[in-house]
Amino acid sequence: MANHFCLLLIFTFFTLSFPSIGSSLSSSSSSKLLPRFPRYTFQNRARIQQFRGDRNEYRYETKFFSQQLDHFSFADLPKFPQRYLINSDYWLGASALGPIFLYCGNEGDIEWFATNSGFIWDIAPKFGALLVFPEHRYYGESMPYGSMEEAYKNATTLSYLTTEQALADFAVFVTDLKRNLSAEACPVVLFGGSYGGMLAAWMRLKYPHIAIGALASSAPILQFEDIVPPETFYDIASNDFKRESSSCFNTIKDSWDAIIAEGQKEKGLLQLTKTFHFCRVLNSTDDLSDWLDSAYSYLAMVDYPYPADFMMPLPGNPIREVCRKIDGAHSDASILDRIYAGISVYYNYTGNVDCFKLDDDPHGLDGWNWQACTEMVMPMSSNQENSMFPAYDFNYSSYKEECWNTFRVNPRPKWVTTEFGGHDIETTLKSFGSNIIFSNGLLDPWSGGSVLKNLSDTIVALVTKEGAHHLDLRPSTAEDPKWLVDQREAEIRLIQGWIETYRLEKEAKVSLLKRSW
Amino acid sequence: MANHFCLLLIFTFFTLSFPSIGSSLSSSSSSKLLPRFPRYTFQNRARIQQFRGDRNEYRYETKFFSQQLDHFSFADLPKFPQRYLINSDYWLGASALGPIFLYCGNEGDIEWFATNSGFIWDIAPKFGALLVFPEHRYYGESMPYGSMEEAYKNATTLSYLTTEQALADFAVFVTDLKRNLSAEACPVVLFGGSYGGMLAAWMRLKYPHIAIGALASSAPILQFEDIVPPETFYDIASNDFKRESSSCFNTIKDSWDAIIAEGQKEKGLLQLTKTFHFCRVLNSTDDLSDWLDSAYSYLAMVDYPYPADFMMPLPGNPIREVCRKIDGAHSDASILDRIYAGISVYYNYTGNVDCFKLDDDPHGLDGWNWQACTEMVMPMSSNQENSMFPAYDFNYSSYKEECWNTFRVNPRPKWVTTEFGGHDIETTLKSFGSNIIFSNGLLDPWSGGSVLKNLSDTIVALVTKEGAHHLDLRPSTAEDPKWLVDQREAEIRLIQGWIETYRLEKEAKVSLLKRSW
Repeated sequence: MANHFCLLLIFTFFTLSFPSIGSSLSSSSSSKLLPRFPRYTFQNRARIQQFRGDRNEYRYETKFFSQQLDHFSFADLPKFPQRYLINSDYWLGASALGPIFLYCGNEGDIEWFATNSGFIWDIAPKFGALLVFPEHRYYGESMPYGSMEEAYKNATTLSYLTTEQALADFAVFVTDLKRNLSAEACPVVLFGGSYGGMLAAWMRLKYPHIAIGALASSAPILQFEDIVPPETFYDIASNDFKRESSSCFNTIKDSWDAIIAEGQKEKGLLQLTKTFHFCRVLNSTDDLSDWLDSAYSYLAMVDYPYPADFMMPLPGNPIREVCRKIDGAHSDASILDRIYAGISVYYNYTGNVDCFKLDDDPHGLDGWNWQACTEMVMPMSSNQENSMFPAYDFNYSSYKEECWNTFRVNPRPKWVTTEFGGHDIETTLKSFGSNIIFSNGLLDPWSGGSVLKNLSDTIVALVTKEGAHHLDLRPSTAEDPKWLVDQREAEIRLIQGWIETYRLEKEAKVSLLKRSW
Repeated sequence: MANHFCLLLIFTFFTLSFPSIGSSLSSSSSSKLLPRFPRYTFQNRARIQQFRGDRNEYRYETKFFSQQLDHFSFADLPKFPQRYLINSDYWLGASALGPIFLYCGNEGDIEWFATNSGFIWDIAPKFGALLVFPEHRYYGESMPYGSMEEAYKNATTLSYLTTEQALADFAVFVTDLKRNLSAEACPVVLFGGSYGGMLAAWMRLKYPHIAIGALASSAPILQFEDIVPPETFYDIASNDFKRESSSCFNTIKDSWDAIIAEGQKEKGLLQLTKTFHFCRVLNSTDDLSDWLDSAYSYLAMVDYPYPADFMMPLPGNPIREVCRKIDGAHSDASILDRIYAGISVYYNYTGNVDCFKLDDDPHGLDGWNWQACTEMVMPMSSNQENSMFPAYDFNYSSYKEECWNTFRVNPRPKWVTTEFGGHDIETTLKSFGSNIIFSNGLLDPWSGGSVLKNLSDTIVALVTKEGAHHLDLRPSTAEDPKWLVDQREAEIRLIQGWIETYRLEKEAKVSLLKRSW
């Protein structure tokens, strides 16, 4: 991972697809940057349709809400259409105080998140809940300035892509929705996974008058500044491999040098291109290393106990499969052949791929990179000792430089903790706030930056040893292990408790009012 | 009060003093608008010096902090110098976890608020507290864009004058201050009166990780939308007069028609000018009515039990004095002579004024009017039944039109309750948040929009029947009645409790850490 930041993929502001976009933003055509969550790609588009087809219950209407571009100033700015999905099939209605379940849309197409959050759909009938999935500004179809091209044109047009604005969007949206439905008294419960989970937790803290509680799944709200060690992410991801097989872990750890050595040979890049079946010849070994380490990180996130199709179609316990391939290759297979055999589980489980494209997201114009370059500065390092990834020390100066070169923007690395807290969160929230569930699976490398212990009686952590990235938000399946069923049941009980308490208070107030008439 | 909104004074964007300012803002040279808190005028400037001279303990350094203009977007905007006052004479220091008392600067010169918040100075030695008084952006010397002229030039330059930005200013400022003092672990306690009290309460709710508690004195956080009846303010103000003397109340109530009748006579305005000793001839009876009703409202706010010099030099129980003059005039005095005798207590208690100027603030360029025209939309009406003020029904359309004509801005009347809550605040805060004191005196017409009962064990109301506008924040005096001494003692005990609890938690954590070493 020498000479690059962390996980991620590639800024491609000069792709053929969007030749004009971002041309004023960046003078470098490609730079690797920034940790990231599972990401929506255009390939997922087809899968959304498939999900909806498979599961009849994912029915929703798509609507748009005319949203304020800047909630915190009174500059004369154009409104933008915020997309939201809505399903009222199960709703008890306003007079019965039927709850409203609001999923806090994260950095991607809201349909992708909605169709990958089966848990909410599963429990909606039981709760008689109205479901709404507002999309995050600057993603999917919720574009300011009329189009993605305009919204992503430069640092000025992008400047309103912030977490605080997104939370205010949700607040304004749901307040208006409730008014229109005469449902002002109905309790709102927030849901979110990953960055969406961070939004859910923060929204409950910042807008307690709007939502009575939040289920924040795999929400690394502590992955900022110096709150958790920067090595946390890669240590956990590495451990996921080591626990399956230490030889697998060691093979991967040794492979980076092998790649560099191969690359330095005459025709080495050509050979690597062949070994890894790329469609075009590699430009550098870094491209290969990035492609691999991104896959390992994603594998750790989606190391689910049963087959799933979130990032990629994958078998259950995919890391076990990867390691089986790496360890089980023919005894005279080279280290790189082993790696290839393993990584094919991730990139080509269906066996349909003839050759691999390095940039799996041709429309790489990326809001998350903007967010990482402004507020979401999550320092990450990989150390020699516990990590199987290439050694890397987070270096804020080069991070900042990269952001400047790409977006002409300077990050504010201390702003998130100023705005949302994080340092010594126990003392702050021990006697402040209520009704937040932080759910995490310890296989998920993001769990290290999340809340893993109860902060108070009502701000609680639900941790599973064998869970991965917001597994609890996925639909129930016949293969669900008991610990997962238990985790979801605990969540349901807690949410029921919030709603019951809220209703009792409302009813007490109404009867008090009636008595005073 | 026909044909004008409520309390206040006059927009004078075309004054001789600032001929260029606001010329692009308004096409009407004068319009009366908007309820308001006691306001800082340039006359107060001299009094600040006097206070500081009188009371040696008001010693502070004046400093400036380079502040972000827009915390919630990443637009490339210039920083601005935020002024703050600081006193560390009594501070216990960082290692002793000495508390930091932060006064949330409101809509005016911070020196005025600092020197009128003697309570904080009085208790600082007892607590070993560091005192800081950050100024509110766009007031005093804390001007974006280099000068008041530039900051107030138009709706675009004014657009960052919002409450959320001001709170973020305080958060960023104090976080940086603590870092520089290596005082990260020191507890911050917030103070504020009036709008500053609203800021203190909201800041505790929005930034619990930054401040452990807030004393919000006379903070009408519920004076929005339909949360309290719009008549509340004028009903309370009227009652303050009625409780002193119902004939006084009736004389004032009858005076509005008498003024109009007089004004309709030939040379009526000239006669009214003479009766009320104005320096120049009245343009309309409205000007006189506004001048009177503004005085009555302010009198209700500062109806303190001992002589004070906050808005104006006044005797103790000034309303009693006003009514004594109104009721005690010679038996053949006209109704208007009586009113003049009464109002002179307010406008000319020292007897030094030869004639009255109608616009007592020649530099009327006014940030509060901008705030009232954007976020701080407080509906106020005056009804025939309980109010001695001219009847008036709040009319949002004309309010909005007035704002458009003045500032070329549209208010967002529902935004404050979306951002900060207010509707059914009991249910929201019963199990959310902690450590806020809402202190109020029931003579204060703003008390009707404040929190007057305990919301939970730690979000409490301290209400005094005989108190007025943030009386508790004033310095202790020999004349303090027992109920005021008791109120302040209760505040001190609560703040002590917050700090002790915080320290115990911090120490427990430190000893836990030590044990695990």
